[in-house]
Amino acid sequence: MTPQRVTLITLGVADLDRAKAFYGALGWIPTADEGAVVFYQLGGLVLGLFGRAALARDQGRPDASLGTGAMTLAQNFGTEAAVDIAYAAAIKAGATALKAPEKVFWGGYSGYYADPDGHVWELAHNPFWPLNPDGSLTLPKT
Amino acid sequence: MTPQRVTLITLGVADLDRAKAFYGALGWIPTADEGAVVFYQLGGLVLGLFGRAALARDQGRPDASLGTGAMTLAQNFGTEAAVDIAYAAAIKAGATALKAPEKVFWGGYSGYYADPDGHVWELAHNPFWPLNPDGSLTLPKT
Repeated sequence: MTPQRVTLITLGVADLDRAKAFYGALGWIPTADEGAVVFYQLGGLVLGLFGRAALARDQGRPDASLGTGAMTLAQNFGTEAAVDIAYAAAIKAGATALKAPEKVFWGGYSGYYADPDGHVWELAHNPFWPLNPDGSLTLPKT
Repeated sequence: MTPQRVTLITLGVADLDRAKAFYGALGWIPTADEGAVVFYQLGGLVLGLFGRAALARDQGRPDASLGTGAMTLAQNFGTEAAVDIAYAAAIKAGATALKAPEKVFWGGYSGYYADPDGHVWELAHNPFWPLNPDGSLTLPKT
């Protein structure tokens, strides 16, 4: 048994200064900057930026070629307009556009971009998933 | 500006049944199973399992070769013993061992494994980061 939770997401980055500049341009404020690693508080969990080589060593596979892309980190919003505003801000901050926000088959509105290291973010409005007042998400009972 | 939050983590998987079986063997209970995608409530966010090809299409890059590894999802625990128990459970569930839990240079205790699709999980005890009673993590003020 492992608990059904995530407490820390660590993104491996090629250039920590570049990554900090990108997330800073999104308006994110580091909660702790320890030099080799930077932490951002996100609700009840933490996101860290960490060098790719250091991450590979830490993972116990220093020679691994680390890939990105088979995982999406999503931010949900209360309206389509809020998605558009955030998407424009990400592109302005230097993100690579993957798919501009559009209405999607499941009834929502969603766009994708990649950060400077290829980590994929989705910005979405899902009318079936209202957010809690603090921005967290509790799945509706089905 | 984008909000400093993650509401949904989606893992691209080669075989949805295999992935469901793995997380099920960890003791995870799906909150919603919609056939092509399965969602698990994790505190204030949600983790989804979704086919790799479908994820690539959804990301707007159907021909992309999606990699894994340059990102770690971590679960923190209150004690080293709890890390050991969870690590053993993951290996028993079919995870690939990357680094058995050990004392690490920053003063904590940490191990890594990969899920059947190569997504990397860290199980850690960080004595400097006490968890909240609900298992969430708030960074200490520095």
